[in-house]
Amino acid sequence: MTVDTPTLDRLSINLATVRQQWGLREAVEGCARAGIGAIAPWRDQVAAVGLAESARIVRDHGMRVTGLCRGGMFPAATPEGLKAAHEDNLKALEEAVTLGADCLVLVVGGLPDGSKDIRDARRMVEDGIARLLEAAGPAGMPLAIEPLHPMYAADRACVNTLAQALDICDRLGDGVGVAIDAYHVWWDPDLEAQIARAGRAGRILAYHICDWLVPTTDLLLDRGMMGDGVIDLKRLRGLVEAAGYTGLHEVEIFSKDNWWRRDPDEVLATCIERHRDAS
Amino acid sequence: MTVDTPTLDRLSINLATVRQQWGLREAVEGCARAGIGAIAPWRDQVAAVGLAESARIVRDHGMRVTGLCRGGMFPAATPEGLKAAHEDNLKALEEAVTLGADCLVLVVGGLPDGSKDIRDARRMVEDGIARLLEAAGPAGMPLAIEPLHPMYAADRACVNTLAQALDICDRLGDGVGVAIDAYHVWWDPDLEAQIARAGRAGRILAYHICDWLVPTTDLLLDRGMMGDGVIDLKRLRGLVEAAGYTGLHEVEIFSKDNWWRRDPDEVLATCIERHRDAS
Repeated sequence: MTVDTPTLDRLSINLATVRQQWGLREAVEGCARAGIGAIAPWRDQVAAVGLAESARIVRDHGMRVTGLCRGGMFPAATPEGLKAAHEDNLKALEEAVTLGADCLVLVVGGLPDGSKDIRDARRMVEDGIARLLEAAGPAGMPLAIEPLHPMYAADRACVNTLAQALDICDRLGDGVGVAIDAYHVWWDPDLEAQIARAGRAGRILAYHICDWLVPTTDLLLDRGMMGDGVIDLKRLRGLVEAAGYTGLHEVEIFSKDNWWRRDPDEVLATCIERHRDAS
Repeated sequence: MTVDTPTLDRLSINLATVRQQWGLREAVEGCARAGIGAIAPWRDQVAAVGLAESARIVRDHGMRVTGLCRGGMFPAATPEGLKAAHEDNLKALEEAVTLGADCLVLVVGGLPDGSKDIRDARRMVEDGIARLLEAAGPAGMPLAIEPLHPMYAADRACVNTLAQALDICDRLGDGVGVAIDAYHVWWDPDLEAQIARAGRAGRILAYHICDWLVPTTDLLLDRGMMGDGVIDLKRLRGLVEAAGYTGLHEVEIFSKDNWWRRDPDEVLATCIERHRDAS
């Protein structure tokens, strides 16, 4: 599969990538300086600056917001916990609307404390998304279920394959789709078919990139820069685009011992270079 | 699903569980002392004692060998590498036969050095198993493909789901099946259907148990003792046995900071207790 060289206007920076170095304002300014026109912030980064001020910063710099990270974390051990999760998700929805985000990304949550019942957690996730959709639909905010790598099934997200996420979408109808993150799905033997399925259904709301390092030394915070690992990112982008996706490529790298320790302007320059040459 | 309490005669100890404390002889003697009647050794443990002597030790103690770990590691970057892998697998096969193992466990291998082509690695795996089967079939030694958790897709095994392993079995025919390891498959949204499918096809050759800890601090060497993590092991065993499996439950725990540092007799005593109460 041959793919074109992606232009800079297809690049978005998930602000987790520079979260140790910069707050939202500095990150937006840094992206603007580098010629990058899109970002995806995290809610704590927005909260640190304030929602209205964050929206102003984004608007003043003409930044597109490819997603707000994150809603989700639906399962809970008690009815009160479920209610609190729903209320927090309504707030996340409001923030996504205020920021003009393309979608609200959902990291759906894992097992409630003390539970070994992953099927029950998965039911809570689906119930939670259905309930959130009642508000997100009228608000016109797409919900992007992000299937997470199976190594996060217990503690972060019990939706672990694209097929599983798309099954949920099929049952819930309009207003919900998927965020396809290379790091989470690259290993899936059924990937090709499920990306095509997602595209046919018009469900691909976001495409995230980084790389899988060998060895990986930390389950959460050792993601690689594109080109430094083993994911065939050009092929993967080819599949996503062949499925009809025309959106941006959002770089999201958690890297406590490497990229989080570097000069953030250098990180962005590397993202630009690797997006062009290795993604 | 209600399951019975498993009796001690259903317990097997994969000798990786005590590999830091004991060699093969001490481990077999330790298991015998504890009233355990089955083990699964690793090839390096056998090599350290010698194959003939290992077989004698096993026989003298009346130990059943529920599997030899491991054949596999099929993909290679060069024809010479593929040939070397095949020859090494023929040796593993001979060792499994000599030890009277129930099966030769296959950890199939990941990406060859420098490769990002997981589909190609998967083709090499299937070719390699097919070739090994030409010798294993006549030798009467079942080959057990062990799908490994997706976090090992790059460097240990590019067969990552039970469905994928069973698809390979379907294409290869008789003499090959699967080792179902709770640690590797517990997260799978399609687990129930695939276990039933494996059972219908008579493909369940081994069942391995341990637990998934939260948090997990190391990708390879932080497996938990049954009951200490989040896997619903009783339900999982129920599914495997409902699918027709009547074999043993093999405890396999890699745990560099906990169980590998303890008195191995205590480790075995804990395995017995947790096998009974939490598996």
